[in-house]
Amino acid sequence: MRFLLTNDDGIYARGLNALYQELSKDADCLIVAPEVEQSAVGHAITLFRPLMVRKAKKEGHFYGYAVTGTPADCVKIGIKELSEKPVDLVVSGINLGANIGINVIYSGTVSAATEAVIMGVPAMAISLDTHRDADFSFAAKFARKMASFILNDYPMKNIALNINVPAIPEDEIRGVVVAKQGRARLIENFERRVDPRENIYYWLAGDTQLSDNEEADSDACALRHRKISITPIYYDLTRYDVMADLHARIKESF
Amino acid sequence: MRFLLTNDDGIYARGLNALYQELSKDADCLIVAPEVEQSAVGHAITLFRPLMVRKAKKEGHFYGYAVTGTPADCVKIGIKELSEKPVDLVVSGINLGANIGINVIYSGTVSAATEAVIMGVPAMAISLDTHRDADFSFAAKFARKMASFILNDYPMKNIALNINVPAIPEDEIRGVVVAKQGRARLIENFERRVDPRENIYYWLAGDTQLSDNEEADSDACALRHRKISITPIYYDLTRYDVMADLHARIKESF
Repeated sequence: MRFLLTNDDGIYARGLNALYQELSKDADCLIVAPEVEQSAVGHAITLFRPLMVRKAKKEGHFYGYAVTGTPADCVKIGIKELSEKPVDLVVSGINLGANIGINVIYSGTVSAATEAVIMGVPAMAISLDTHRDADFSFAAKFARKMASFILNDYPMKNIALNINVPAIPEDEIRGVVVAKQGRARLIENFERRVDPRENIYYWLAGDTQLSDNEEADSDACALRHRKISITPIYYDLTRYDVMADLHARIKESF
Repeated sequence: MRFLLTNDDGIYARGLNALYQELSKDADCLIVAPEVEQSAVGHAITLFRPLMVRKAKKEGHFYGYAVTGTPADCVKIGIKELSEKPVDLVVSGINLGANIGINVIYSGTVSAATEAVIMGVPAMAISLDTHRDADFSFAAKFARKMASFILNDYPMKNIALNINVPAIPEDEIRGVVVAKQGRARLIENFERRVDPRENIYYWLAGDTQLSDNEEADSDACALRHRKISITPIYYDLTRYDVMADLHARIKESF
C-alpha cells in the first residue's frame, strides 16, 4: 500500500511526523508537503510560478519532498509525478487546530483531501482541536484505524473524510459521530496601521465563533460533546435545494 | 444602493471596468480589487501578512481600492472597513474565462461571491466563456439585469449566484438556465525542468476537459447549448447523501 501524506503546516510539522510514524506501520508512506506553512490558502493551486521540489532530510535520511506550493499542489504533483507507484490513500494532517464549520473552505489541510477526491484517490483530512501543547498520539492512532476502515470496509467514491479529534485524553473521548459541516466561522475585524512611510495597511484579526443556532448534528457540536467528528465532503458547492424555485423565478423575470 | 465590485484579474482588468460602467447606472459602485492577478487562489484569505490598501486612480480620478490580497480578502475588508456605508450587493468579475465544473473550487472570482454570502451580503460572480478578444458589453448588461433581479425579485439567503455567459453575439444566445456545478475539471500534467543551478522544478500545465458523462443540467452543458448558466452556490461541502450510510458503517466498525 502506498499512502501519500501532506499537510498545510509545512513538512517539518510535528503533526505530520506523528502521522508518518503511525501510518508507516501498515503502509509505505511518502511525504509530499509544503516547504513553508500554508494555512488559510483555501483550495489554491499554483499556475503562474514554478513549483520547486526538494528532497528533505531528517536525521540524515530522506524524509519526503518539500514543495514550494499549496497542499493541493502537493497532492497533484505527488500523485502525478513524485510517487513512483499508484497512491492508494491521501492523508492530510494532523492539523494543529480544528477544521470545522464554514472555516473549512479556507483550510489547506482539507483542500488536500478534496484535491485527492478530484483525482480519484480516497482521502482524509485529520485535525486536532487545540492550538498548543498538542499531543498527537491518539489522533495518529485514530488515523491508522480510519485508513484501515477506508481501505477495507468503506470503499469511497467521490468522498473525502474531514476528521476532527478533541484534544482530551483518550479515555475521555465519548465516541465517533458522522457530522455535517456546521456554521462556525471567523468573525473578523481589521486592525488599521500606518507603516514608517505613511502607507496604510491592515491586519486581519478576529476569532472563530460558533453560530448561535449551531445544529446538533454539526462538527462543532460533536467536538463540544467530546466526540470525534467525521464529515463526508466533496467539491460541489451547488445549492440543489433552491434550484427549482430559482429556475421558476428566472423564467418569470427574463 | 451600494454595490461592491471585485474580481481576480486585478483592479485594472477590462472586465471589471465593463461591470463598473454598467452597474454605476443604477448604484453607487465601490471597487475593491486585488493589486495583481489572483487566478486559481481558491478561497484563500491572508492571515500572516498585512494587507496594503492603495487608492488607485484612473484618468486622474479615484477609481477604487487596490489590495495586496485575494478576492476574498477584498470582500472582507471592503465590507468591514473600506465601504463607508452598508453593502447591498457584491459583484465579482467579469472574469476572462468560464468558471464551471469542479474548477469552481479553484476560482478566485467565485470565492469572492461565496465570501459575501458568509458575511450575509447577496452576491454574484460573472464570467465570460472566452480567453481572448473578449467583448464584455453584453455580459455587463446582463449583470445589471441580474442585480435588479436579486435586489427586487429574488431575495437571497445563504446563496450566491455563479453566472457564466457564452462569448457569442447577443442575438445568438438561446436563453438563461439554472444549472448545477458540473464535472468539468483540469486534467493536469507537470513539465519537469532543471534550473541553471541544477535544481528541479515543475510547471503545472494541462487543459480543462469536460467529463464524458457530463449531465444535461450542468453549467458546461448550458454553455455548450449557447445558454447563460446560473448556479446557486454556497459554502457547504458536506455530502449529505452518504451521511446515514457512513454513520451505520462507522457504528459497525468502531
